Amino acid sequence: MPRPTLSNAARPATFTVDARDETGALKPTPIAGEHPLTIYIDNREILTIMTLGAAPEALVLGYLRNQRLVDSIDEIASVQVDWEVDACAVTTRHGLKNLDEKMAKRTKTTGCGEGTVFGDLMEEIDSIALRRDVFVEEDTLFGLLNNVRLHESIYKQAGAVHGCALAAGENILTFVEDVGRHNAVDAIAGWMWLENVSGDDKIFYTTGRLTSEMVIKAAQMRIPVLVSRSGLTQMGYDIAKKVGITMIGRAVNRHYLLFTGVERLVKAA
Amino acid sequence: MPRPTLSNAARPATFTVDARDETGALKPTPIAGEHPLTIYIDNREILTIMTLGAAPEALVLGYLRNQRLVDSIDEIASVQVDWEVDACAVTTRHGLKNLDEKMAKRTKTTGCGEGTVFGDLMEEIDSIALRRDVFVEEDTLFGLLNNVRLHESIYKQAGAVHGCALAAGENILTFVEDVGRHNAVDAIAGWMWLENVSGDDKIFYTTGRLTSEMVIKAAQMRIPVLVSRSGLTQMGYDIAKKVGITMIGRAVNRHYLLFTGVERLVKAA
Repeated sequence: MPRPTLSNAARPATFTVDARDETGALKPTPIAGEHPLTIYIDNREILTIMTLGAAPEALVLGYLRNQRLVDSIDEIASVQVDWEVDACAVTTRHGLKNLDEKMAKRTKTTGCGEGTVFGDLMEEIDSIALRRDVFVEEDTLFGLLNNVRLHESIYKQAGAVHGCALAAGENILTFVEDVGRHNAVDAIAGWMWLENVSGDDKIFYTTGRLTSEMVIKAAQMRIPVLVSRSGLTQMGYDIAKKVGITMIGRAVNRHYLLFTGVERLVKAA
Repeated sequence: MPRPTLSNAARPATFTVDARDETGALKPTPIAGEHPLTIYIDNREILTIMTLGAAPEALVLGYLRNQRLVDSIDEIASVQVDWEVDACAVTTRHGLKNLDEKMAKRTKTTGCGEGTVFGDLMEEIDSIALRRDVFVEEDTLFGLLNNVRLHESIYKQAGAVHGCALAAGENILTFVEDVGRHNAVDAIAGWMWLENVSGDDKIFYTTGRLTSEMVIKAAQMRIPVLVSRSGLTQMGYDIAKKVGITMIGRAVNRHYLLFTGVERLVKAA
């Protein structure tokens, strides 16, 4: 099956506006872009996402995948983003079955500000077995944290974005920043889908908090190691323990807190 | 009309789990609570919110208000949260008209990880006129920032939460922390609805980023001054300028950046 045809419609990430600081000085200040993007599948309106627009095609693919609206990337013929009308037209090869039913399900279980088909995902979690033969050396973790630091261009300029990375060891395979951390993780999922990259020996890094949804999405991608600069929530912790994911929080420079799945993190001899 | 009958079902905000740091030392670490809460209106399931659970009744009220599912607080007889079943039962006095239609609208326009009926809100924005005779002295702003610092108990302990405050001058009227910044702002809106507090001479403070949705919600509450510790997005900035809100970002200690509505911030003579 050929790959879907994609537009390449990344938006400029930052814009500079004038601000005044407490001394009264004029400070030209870069701010993050934010744009509505309305997704259509075969001409049917699905929803509007607010996004930085750095990786809109991957974001839309990842959204469709993570919301379980499309089962296989092979079903998608084309993803075309047009910022003139703030729209993304997704064309399927043969039409989608049960779209109404799937949309209805999404409605009932989508959390406010969470964006996940929560009930379904919790069921799915029970069937996930992560690889137990994947290990990360502490120095690899530190190397990855340093590589992330070098990547974060938009955050450093403008703040107001979250970044996510998929890494093989300390090497970043793809890095996405967006105004919502849900968007950033969806865009990573979209990229993996498109490139047919397995998560089962990878590390997922996020600047954002490890809430239930982030842990569920990492588990769905079969990624055994989850690293965050930030903290975590109780439910994120509980799910990580249940599914056996290695969860590392507060990871900055050469510091971290290892919460669950301790056997995968290996200290140098 | 009597007030709705409310449960008083706040959850403990933090839980302590064990972690290991980079030295191998065991660190008991407080983490933020996160719980699913499924909202029912007159026995009909609406959706599941993930929340810290610090102010669940106000959160549900604010959600119903901000999603425009209920027009007036007088329509609500009761809001009962029961954590045994992770559910909140909302009972209306006379049933809700057009709930299906409103739910359908919500579906189409709710953004991924944004949770707003975006299209409608943008239309509503055009009709909002904020008070022009409300001013904030710089020292009042600094006093408020100090008061916020004293309030942030959960963030200081566990991170992984956002805080929002409604203030009259430097005095905080209500302060809510939650795992999602959308939840925190919804809970503030719910409190204002319940207590019949007008926003038109108030200050809204948030630890979170000033995205389009945050600015729209502040404008809907008729609050003329919006302060954040974090940065802002382009669309947040554009809407703030359009609606004439005073927007202050990067506000920490005695520093800030004033972006829009500069006439409301007054420096000491």
